[in-house]
Amino acid sequence: MAKEEVSSKQVILKHHVTGYPKESDMEFKNTTIKLNVPEGSNAVVLKNLYLSCDPYMRLRMSKLEGSYVASFTPASPITGYGVAKVLESGDSNFQKGDLVWGITGWEEYSIVTTTHTTLFKIHDKDVPLSYYTGILGMPGMTAYAGFYEVCSPKKGETVFVSAASGAVGQLVGQFAKMLGCYVVGSAGSKEKVDLLKSKFGFDEAFNYKEEQDLDTALKRYFPDGIDIYFENVGGKMLDAVLLNMKLHGRIAVCGMISQYNLEQTEGVHNLFCLITKRIRMEGFLVTEYYHLYPKYLEMIIPQIKSGKVVYVEDIAEGLESAPGALIGLFSGHNIGKQVVMVSHE
Amino acid sequence: MAKEEVSSKQVILKHHVTGYPKESDMEFKNTTIKLNVPEGSNAVVLKNLYLSCDPYMRLRMSKLEGSYVASFTPASPITGYGVAKVLESGDSNFQKGDLVWGITGWEEYSIVTTTHTTLFKIHDKDVPLSYYTGILGMPGMTAYAGFYEVCSPKKGETVFVSAASGAVGQLVGQFAKMLGCYVVGSAGSKEKVDLLKSKFGFDEAFNYKEEQDLDTALKRYFPDGIDIYFENVGGKMLDAVLLNMKLHGRIAVCGMISQYNLEQTEGVHNLFCLITKRIRMEGFLVTEYYHLYPKYLEMIIPQIKSGKVVYVEDIAEGLESAPGALIGLFSGHNIGKQVVMVSHE
Repeated sequence: MAKEEVSSKQVILKHHVTGYPKESDMEFKNTTIKLNVPEGSNAVVLKNLYLSCDPYMRLRMSKLEGSYVASFTPASPITGYGVAKVLESGDSNFQKGDLVWGITGWEEYSIVTTTHTTLFKIHDKDVPLSYYTGILGMPGMTAYAGFYEVCSPKKGETVFVSAASGAVGQLVGQFAKMLGCYVVGSAGSKEKVDLLKSKFGFDEAFNYKEEQDLDTALKRYFPDGIDIYFENVGGKMLDAVLLNMKLHGRIAVCGMISQYNLEQTEGVHNLFCLITKRIRMEGFLVTEYYHLYPKYLEMIIPQIKSGKVVYVEDIAEGLESAPGALIGLFSGHNIGKQVVMVSHE
Repeated sequence: MAKEEVSSKQVILKHHVTGYPKESDMEFKNTTIKLNVPEGSNAVVLKNLYLSCDPYMRLRMSKLEGSYVASFTPASPITGYGVAKVLESGDSNFQKGDLVWGITGWEEYSIVTTTHTTLFKIHDKDVPLSYYTGILGMPGMTAYAGFYEVCSPKKGETVFVSAASGAVGQLVGQFAKMLGCYVVGSAGSKEKVDLLKSKFGFDEAFNYKEEQDLDTALKRYFPDGIDIYFENVGGKMLDAVLLNMKLHGRIAVCGMISQYNLEQTEGVHNLFCLITKRIRMEGFLVTEYYHLYPKYLEMIIPQIKSGKVVYVEDIAEGLESAPGALIGLFSGHNIGKQVVMVSHE
């Protein structure tokens, strides 16, 4: 049964970006869309509720060749993780009225032809729905897999997290505290540093922008060295951390946000420390760990409901705010996980 | 019973070194030594037969602070791995007449007060004794532990070895071939490249000094990418390798000889590849694997005797040649494992 067309505003990437992205690299487009599943298709029709702003999206704004993610297509809507409501479904795994999270478009309505591997049905609605862009979605699984599966953490170890108030970092710090580790985080403002200590329970935190020398700062908080570094930023911080790792330390490489807008990345000079300290440094991608998602939900949802794990979001209202919210990630404008609220359910 | 004094020539490090080391950073000293164990001591008196020149020794020539190895003491003999004959022993683990390998001095005779943890008794003498500075000593164990324990190799994988004709590299390549891997090595001269292919059975080899662009060279030999990189050199080669690693590749970081003489190390720019390809990069030190030495000997000695594994040494004659032999490592002067023959048994 054909539905009538409705208007659907979109956020379009105008062109591939080099250097620091600007809001003007994006534009809005007013389109119309028929809210039905094309005949014979297993697509689902989504009403987008929340969109997720994540650092990796900067990479997709560039013209990439043979990377692990595809470039965004210029003149098309940006795509990314989001929370949506199913309006119609040609896929038997999803029913009209279901709430889902996964990859969707930066627009009011999307028709998604992906299979169930990239859309997750939301079962527990007794938590803020926006959490499925964060603690209950990709960033939550990233923190969980990165910390528990890649870092091989042990009680009593010393843990350093960069970009620690971000979508992933705030969780890594809380997971490490739950395990009985000593945890220090770095962030880019006094407000974030306060949040790390007062809200997330980090033992210590510092504002990297106020440190003359990152090596000195790390030695202040880790006089005996770092067992685990959860790497979100790269560049100079990584170099300073390498000097301060302990014997048999582990570095889980999750992201390198300090490098994403540079046309020539910074060189890392202290890799010889990998030998002298027998360090394991390992990159990972959350997509290889989604089989653990049910187990993660079972652990994390009670922790959220009991208040033992908290999550801070920075919610921008309306699709109109999306370009600014995305750009803001790279100047550290957001406090906590950056979300865009497109529509209430 | 007090012995008479004998003359013992020594190789002395005159001062700590910055930048490229020169023969004139060392000098000879003629001393005399009493060839008996000091009363009440468990020292052993050694007649040194072969001394080993190893890249890590460059680090010890520098003034180091808090590194994994101690600086050499200026005005004292250099120390390093060697093969020696026990002349007197205050340690019940060693008898007069035993042949041993381990850390000794760059001199004709040494009195070593270390315990049996740094001296290994030589049981099989049916192989060249000098091999205990190489294939049957520290470099052999380095190749064995680094390849089998750190690289997690599997039959059919693609393996790249830098400094491939060196003391360690030539063995890593042969171990990888034994396992059924495709193996490519890089070295710094045509003669070494020929050796890799004709003597050690590498599938391919190239002279890195003749390549305009290392990335292009690696793509020529690894059109589908590298599963395992055995890292001996660091710097630009590491950067090029990162671009050519396969998904879930492993990098065993054994050494970074290209960086040892630089006052400011080269920056490595492509570490983001660790994430995109989920690479594990791990530094290791042979000293943590000596418990596997008996198992290694059991495997390798028959391979040597049957000619299935070969080993090329570059033997400099006489203690007088030691400074030049050591310096030569850093210009790639040696072909194969660099040894100094001090005395025949």
